[in-house]
This record gives sequence, structure tokens and C-alpha cells, in this order.
Amino acid sequence: MTGTPPRLDGILETAVYVDDMEAAHGFYSGVLGLTRMVSGDRLYAYDAGPAQTLLVFHRGHTGEDVETPGGVVPGHDTAGPSHFAFRTGRDALDDWRMYLKATGVDIISEVDWPAGGHSLYFHDPDGNVLEIAAPPLWPNFGAQFEAGQGLAGAV
Amino acid sequence: MTGTPPRLDGILETAVYVDDMEAAHGFYSGVLGLTRMVSGDRLYAYDAGPAQTLLVFHRGHTGEDVETPGGVVPGHDTAGPSHFAFRTGRDALDDWRMYLKATGVDIISEVDWPAGGHSLYFHDPDGNVLEIAAPPLWPNFGAQFEAGQGLAGAV
Repeated sequence: MTGTPPRLDGILETAVYVDDMEAAHGFYSGVLGLTRMVSGDRLYAYDAGPAQTLLVFHRGHTGEDVETPGGVVPGHDTAGPSHFAFRTGRDALDDWRMYLKATGVDIISEVDWPAGGHSLYFHDPDGNVLEIAAPPLWPNFGAQFEAGQGLAGAV
Repeated sequence: MTGTPPRLDGILETAVYVDDMEAAHGFYSGVLGLTRMVSGDRLYAYDAGPAQTLLVFHRGHTGEDVETPGGVVPGHDTAGPSHFAFRTGRDALDDWRMYLKATGVDIISEVDWPAGGHSLYFHDPDGNVLEIAAPPLWPNFGAQFEAGQGLAGAV
């Protein structure tokens, strides 16, 4: 008997690993418009929404544990392109398509999802596979997350 | 002149790559208590909160593009342990510490953050570095995300 899992309120940090931190910053800040909250030796942290942080780690420099005054931050590191997705509203997809093209970012694919949503796929400068998705898509990402409602209208 | 980035509403999908899908399911569902929304050949998708999906990808089986009736889903794949973090309230940290120990999950480190928050670190069965964090921690993850408020109280 181990009991019931305590409460989780969502995902706080999503990580991506890159070789070129400045190229990544040009992309995540300059193109996608995210605000950098922390600039460290091994990571940049971006504001991706309330209680959502995108961590951009410097590949090859994050495998060792880091001692801090408050405790040891365990190391981790990956090779190869990973994936994560941003969400937006259906009303913003045309704007994103035009904006990415205007900034020289190739849209490598678009997908219509069975539930009715739609995604744009593109690469960051390191080849990670990024997506901007509009609902409905997943069972927990339905039509209530449409234009302008965001989280405030959905929870 | 390329204009202003259109709206992003947050991160929809966070990915982790594993070698053993059934061990991962035992952990993410059985231990952490996440509900599996989709069970596919190359991925399991878990409900991690409103408009937040954890994608568990089968390492070595996701590198190729996948053709679907709605379009091509681009491939991606990584080697090595990655990192992501869940968030909870300060009130739930003691319960998580006890619960993880009771279920046989070693807490590999704990960190007190300068802003006052606290994190527990542990591994999934594949060695990915997971974290459960309580606020305040990041500038966009402050005290307003404390016990029981969740997103509804913060946006």
C-alpha cells in the first residue's frame, strides 16, 4: 500500500538542448518573441506563459551535477533533435504562417488533426522539431482553448 | 520588417524519450498518477493538466516522418537523459517526498531556490531527470501559484 499520488498542477519546465546558445536566443527571443528570464552559463530560461518555463540548455555543458547553496542540481544532457509544442488559437495560425515565412523560418509540415485542430511544424536553429498547434487536438486541449480564451477561460 | 510575433498561449506538449515503454507507463501512470489519453505504436500521451500533454516517445522508433491522412508528422529522436519539471504547491512537497519513498522512487536531490521555492529530483525508469517544484521559483512562477490555487487563481 503506497497510497494515492499527491497533487500535480501541471508542467513547469520544458527543456530543449542546443549547440549554439546565441543562435537559439536569436530564435526563441528574436523570432518567437519569448522573454528571457535568466541567462546562465549552461542555460537560458524563457517565459512561456504563467508557470511555464522553456529551458534552453547548452548541449555538452549540462551533464554534470551543479552544486548550489541550496542543494545539488542533477545533470542531464541529450543528443539529437527533440520535440515540443506551443499552443495558440485557431485565429492566430494564419498570422503565424505568414510571420514565420517573413522571418525566414521554413514551415516543414502542416497537419490537420482528426479532432479538427491544426499544427505548423518548423525547426529551431539546432534542428529541434517545434510545433505551434491550435485546438481541438488532445482530449485535454479542446475547443474551449480557442481564440483569446487562453487558460483563463478554460479552468 | 517582419512584424511582431503572433500570440502564443503556452506550451502544449513536453516530450520525454524512453527505451522501455511499459516501464515508463508503470511510472508515469502507476506512480505519478497521470492519465494516458493516447496509446500508439511510437508514443503514449498523458494528461498533465489543462492544455498540457506529456508525450512519452519510444526512443529509436520516432526518427522517421509519419504520414497521416492530415499531413506529415516530422520525425525526431534523442539519446541521453533529458529534464522536465512538474509543479505543485508547497503544501504537497512533504506528501510527495513520503509518497515517492513509499513507492521505491529514490529522491536523488533536493534544492532550495533563492526565491524561496523548493524542488525534489528523481529519475524515471530510463534515467530522465524529473523534478517536482513548488513556488516561488521563476519570475513567472511566484507565490500566487501556491497551495490549491493552480492556474485558475493566477491568470
